[in-house]
Amino acid sequence: MLIQLTYASRTARILGPADIKDILGASQRNNARADITGALCLNHGIFLQQLEGDRAAVNALYHRLLKDTRHRDTAVLDFGEIPHRRFTSWSMGLLTSLDTNRQLFLKYSSSADFDPYSMSTSTLRSFFDEVMQNVRWLE
Amino acid sequence: MLIQLTYASRTARILGPADIKDILGASQRNNARADITGALCLNHGIFLQQLEGDRAAVNALYHRLLKDTRHRDTAVLDFGEIPHRRFTSWSMGLLTSLDTNRQLFLKYSSSADFDPYSMSTSTLRSFFDEVMQNVRWLE
Amino acid sequence: MLIQLTYASRTARILGPADIKDILGASQRNNARADITGALCLNHGIFLQQLEGDRAAVNALYHRLLKDTRHRDTAVLDFGEIPHRRFTSWSMGLLTSLDTNRQLFLKYSSSADFDPYSMSTSTLRSFFDEVMQNVRWLE
Amino acid sequence: MLIQLTYASRTARILGPADIKDILGASQRNNARADITGALCLNHGIFLQQLEGDRAAVNALYHRLLKDTRHRDTAVLDFGEIPHRRFTSWSMGLLTSLDTNRQLFLKYSSSADFDPYSMSTSTLRSFFDEVMQNVRWLE
Amino acid sequence: MLIQLTYASRTARILGPADIKDILGASQRNNARADITGALCLNHGIFLQQLEGDRAAVNALYHRLLKDTRHRDTAVLDFGEIPHRRFTSWSMGLLTSLDTNRQLFLKYSSSADFDPYSMSTSTLRSFFDEVMQNVRWLE
Amino acid sequence: MLIQLTYASRTARILGPADIKDILGASQRNNARADITGALCLNHGIFLQQLEGDRAAVNALYHRLLKDTRHRDTAVLDFGEIPHRRFTSWSMGLLTSLDTNRQLFLKYSSSADFDPYSMSTSTLRSFFDEVMQNVRWLE
Amino acid sequence: MLIQLTYASRTARILGPADIKDILGASQRNNARADITGALCLNHGIFLQQLEGDRAAVNALYHRLLKDTRHRDTAVLDFGEIPHRRFTSWSMGLLTSLDTNRQLFLKYSSSADFDPYSMSTSTLRSFFDEVMQNVRWLE
Amino acid sequence: MLIQLTYASRTARILGPADIKDILGASQRNNARADITGALCLNHGIFLQQLEGDRAAVNALYHRLLKDTRHRDTAVLDFGEIPHRRFTSWSMGLLTSLDTNRQLFLKYSSSADFDPYSMSTSTLRSFFDEVMQNVRWLE
Amino acid sequence: MLIQLTYASRTARILGPADIKDILGASQRNNARADITGALCLNHGIFLQQLEGDRAAVNALYHRLLKDTRHRDTAVLDFGEIPHRRFTSWSMGLLTSLDTNRQLFLKYSSSADFDPYSMSTSTLRSFFDEVMQNVRWLE
Amino acid sequence: MLIQLTYASRTARILGPADIKDILGASQRNNARADITGALCLNHGIFLQQLEGDRAAVNALYHRLLKDTRHRDTAVLDFGEIPHRRFTSWSMGLLTSLDTNRQLFLKYSSSADFDPYSMSTSTLRSFFDEVMQNVRWLE
Repeated sequence: MLIQLTYASRTARILGPADIKDILGASQRNNARADITGALCLNHGIFLQQLEGDRAAVNALYHRLLKDTRHRDTAVLDFGEIPHRRFTSWSMGLLTSLDTNRQLFLKYSSSADFDPYSMSTSTLRSFFDEVMQNVRWLE
Repeated sequence: MLIQLTYASRTARILGPADIKDILGASQRNNARADITGALCLNHGIFLQQLEGDRAAVNALYHRLLKDTRHRDTAVLDFGEIPHRRFTSWSMGLLTSLDTNRQLFLKYSSSADFDPYSMSTSTLRSFFDEVMQNVRWLE
Repeated sequence: MLIQLTYASRTARILGPADIKDILGASQRNNARADITGALCLNHGIFLQQLEGDRAAVNALYHRLLKDTRHRDTAVLDFGEIPHRRFTSWSMGLLTSLDTNRQLFLKYSSSADFDPYSMSTSTLRSFFDEVMQNVRWLE
Repeated sequence: MLIQLTYASRTARILGPADIKDILGASQRNNARADITGALCLNHGIFLQQLEGDRAAVNALYHRLLKDTRHRDTAVLDFGEIPHRRFTSWSMGLLTSLDTNRQLFLKYSSSADFDPYSMSTSTLRSFFDEVMQNVRWLE
Repeated sequence: MLIQLTYASRTARILGPADIKDILGASQRNNARADITGALCLNHGIFLQQLEGDRAAVNALYHRLLKDTRHRDTAVLDFGEIPHRRFTSWSMGLLTSLDTNRQLFLKYSSSADFDPYSMSTSTLRSFFDEVMQNVRWLE
Repeated sequence: MLIQLTYASRTARILGPADIKDILGASQRNNARADITGALCLNHGIFLQQLEGDRAAVNALYHRLLKDTRHRDTAVLDFGEIPHRRFTSWSMGLLTSLDTNRQLFLKYSSSADFDPYSMSTSTLRSFFDEVMQNVRWLE
Repeated sequence: MLIQLTYASRTARILGPADIKDILGASQRNNARADITGALCLNHGIFLQQLEGDRAAVNALYHRLLKDTRHRDTAVLDFGEIPHRRFTSWSMGLLTSLDTNRQLFLKYSSSADFDPYSMSTSTLRSFFDEVMQNVRWLE
Repeated sequence: MLIQLTYASRTARILGPADIKDILGASQRNNARADITGALCLNHGIFLQQLEGDRAAVNALYHRLLKDTRHRDTAVLDFGEIPHRRFTSWSMGLLTSLDTNRQLFLKYSSSADFDPYSMSTSTLRSFFDEVMQNVRWLE
Repeated sequence: MLIQLTYASRTARILGPADIKDILGASQRNNARADITGALCLNHGIFLQQLEGDRAAVNALYHRLLKDTRHRDTAVLDFGEIPHRRFTSWSMGLLTSLDTNRQLFLKYSSSADFDPYSMSTSTLRSFFDEVMQNVRWLE
Repeated sequence: MLIQLTYASRTARILGPADIKDILGASQRNNARADITGALCLNHGIFLQQLEGDRAAVNALYHRLLKDTRHRDTAVLDFGEIPHRRFTSWSMGLLTSLDTNRQLFLKYSSSADFDPYSMSTSTLRSFFDEVMQNVRWLE
């Protein structure tokens, strides 16, 4: 059964470019091995991720992430069966805090800061759809 | 929670270009600070506004407007939750009483005068959609 | 409240070009004054009209028409609230009995003659939609 | 084609019991002859009626009513095709101004007075449905 | 046009039985005069009200309430047109903090405390429907 | 925001009546403190649970359960926003392996054994609805 | 393929009780042989029938009826596939012209006379549904 | 009332080009006189026709066809009211048995032969829609 | 994945009571072992069966039936995923050819004989629903 | 009645180009004779086929395939009536295991291997739609 899990987390400390490169490399290797696809956005120390794959595999990956001390406030935001995947590989996108993105954040929440924790499920889905098209992806 | 409030008011006295510039400047500053977006139309001494933002913030702004002695007959015309905002900044439009606009007013009401107070909620929404595309906006 | 009234009538005697010009001129003046918009088709002595405007004003106009001795067999064919108007001025169209129009009449009725009295409400609406696009309008 | 016409009118002068009896008797005779069925409500000098029958016959009856000098402000409020009739005879009901009816009027309008002229079409239909069940009918 | 406005407010100080009696008496008198109907719930210093009536009248009443220094944090929670009223008079209900009500509050929010400010519009409507049936009304 | 999380887990070792009493007591205390409501079914060493409450609180509870060494194979099966709660307290039910329950298991899966891990989301929801009505609840 | 055919016809001459008995007996024998079921109503020399069965068999029966000189003005009124039959035998009902039936006729047409030829397809279906329940059937 | 009748028939003997020309000429003359429009397809001795027009006129035409000894196995395949006509004149199309048409027949039935008798009503409608666009029409 | 397969077959020779008892006993044993549930109807040498269970298990059982020389003309009539089973055990029902059943067969087909092979899928489902409630089941 | 059957099978031994050519040739001849159309995909020893045609003919073909010792694990995956065919001839496509196809497999299942046996019916239909457009067809 294919499922999709969306979760957020805060980085325990400030991440430099090397950290980000590490995280991207590790997640690409691990996810490919477990046939997990998805996307990851990062802005001001907040991660927002969508994971797609077998229900057991996605649960296993999520549980491993919970033990990673570099993350805190990890929380499931959305979860459900999907007829087929949206992604066929693994990607990571940086949401910089330039004006364009601030307008994007403002459109989907009460303030111009990136705060997926306060989004309702339906707002989260609309936001993810739009962010997918505007973010600069690292591949 | 994101909400949208539409209200109308009448200006207590005739507004000159300087008044209008003042109102636009003040509302842009105040609204930006409260992460409120929206639009304002003005015709023959009647204001029609849509405010979008956090429910508490929009209520606070509306209550401040009620105390503004330059406005009278202020009235909520429509109010409700929105999945995301329509505006990402603040705008003000002048609806002059030229023939084009008179046809617009006629299309949505019984007479060719601008009278949002007499519009039903559904007519008001259709009217706002069309006026958004035809009005000359001051930015 | 905006409403739309569709009615038919038969001319009491044969109308010449001058009569038609008179009718058009008078109805344009009267309707503009009452903020009534709409359209009028004429074929072989049968009028088919749509009037849009305030419910009271449209009723008043219709009642005046009933007293006009140039019309007989006047009958309401359709009536109801509308969210907004279709017309923003007043027009009059001549449906000549050329072959194109005969095919149009045939499409919406059992014979090739123009007979709005025998049309059901839904056929009448479809017919009006199509006639609007094909008729030669006098302005 | 079966149609239903709802209209209101104001009595030109105050009606006594004899007038009402006259009106009921005459309308029963005339309507039966034309296979028109329906109902008539009366409150404080305002008539609200629903007529059902052949489109031509209902139009003819309505036009006759317009010439009746005992009525003024006569206006079509609703009109449309019906799959079948609601009434199989002709009835007349008196809406007295007791407290129960005032609550009924209040439920469907802005004030506790009977004013079908200010009702929207959908409110009018709901009102008529409820009034049908509560009114004391004269037969 | 009939509209319904739902709002909440906090009492500026602790209300005794005499205050509550006063509020109920005054609101019954004022509302009846303006043909406004509705209901009022009170729990632990928080008011939740629904007002029904003419749009202008309800706006006027709400604006008067904003000036009442016994209330603070007054905020519109929901507003819209209604086909007909739910209430035909004016009522006031006390929501005591007994166990039954705590379960009711818990069912519609994250905690067992009464907090209409944090309810979404749809939760608010469901809550109001259920509370209407369980509350002990003062008449 | 109210959410509901359904998860399954396997007990790391065989549970006696004392263990079950312990688990029920502890979960009732902990959940009440966090305003979390829900239900727990147990059959042959497999737990199936539904937790309702604030998104952050439910996530926190779930993360604590993941660290509990008495459970293994813990996995989220379903997760989403709910308009209001189904439960207003906390319950625990024992699904014994008698014939009635075996027929219940068979109705919702390929075999007569209790295996929520292999159920699709929609089957899981139907199963939970039916099991709620048939299970013998410990209170 | 199962189909249903509804048709009307006029009797060429006045039918006495013996004719009717003959028609019923013959149609029962013929229809049973062809596995055709249905119903027949008779009022004032007009037959209204519904035939159900195999498309070829119903067509064959209808074509035979066209040649029967006791019927004229025979016309198909409705025809279409049906998921299953409504009748499992053959019945014949007399619609006498008593007051009850006149009210029934009036309900579905412009006058109180039985005239299935002037009914629209949807009115015909509603009429047949109601007549089925009220008619006195001969078996 | 406008209706559409679809029927099939088999030619009693092999038709040559002169017969076909005769049939087309006669049907064009007869149908135009009765304001009947439609289309006729012919393949391997099987006719498939759609007739549109007044219910009484179409019935009369169909009954005349039943008496035409050049046709056998005539059968109504579909019949019902239509909001407006599809054809505004009369056409005849030859479906030759070339490969393109055989693929068309195969698409809508179990074999590559033209057999409208075995088609369900919904398949018949889809088939007619497609054949209209591909057939070579004689005018 | 739970699926349901409906198939028909003809018995290769006439079955006596002992054969039927054998078939029922064997199928109950075999099906229970494979967690397959369902129902079997028998009339005049025709079997109609619904099998529910795991897709692989149902396919395996069906393929075994194809090799059983006591059956011929075996054919899948319907097949698809089901959210949950309809049966929780295995049953066999005899459809005798008494009058009640003949009416049942007639209702769902062109003749009064039992012929599931000629039924469309939707007719088959309706038929199965009704037959389930009327058949005399052997347990 | 037109039906569509989708099934999978595994080749009993490794197939060379000559085997594939044989299979394609034989199936084209056999299917054309029975008016069966469809498509066949092959990847790593797994066949996935869609057969369209008369219900009896498709059943007969499927039963013949079951006896073909070159196939094992043959299983019906989907079956149902279709309004018209998707294919008008017979095709065979090779799904090579290049990266493009692996991404296609991954999109519709938990792993990057081709495994139609584990797909749900709805996933299978989506997969077949997409594979139809990307596969390289042998004709």
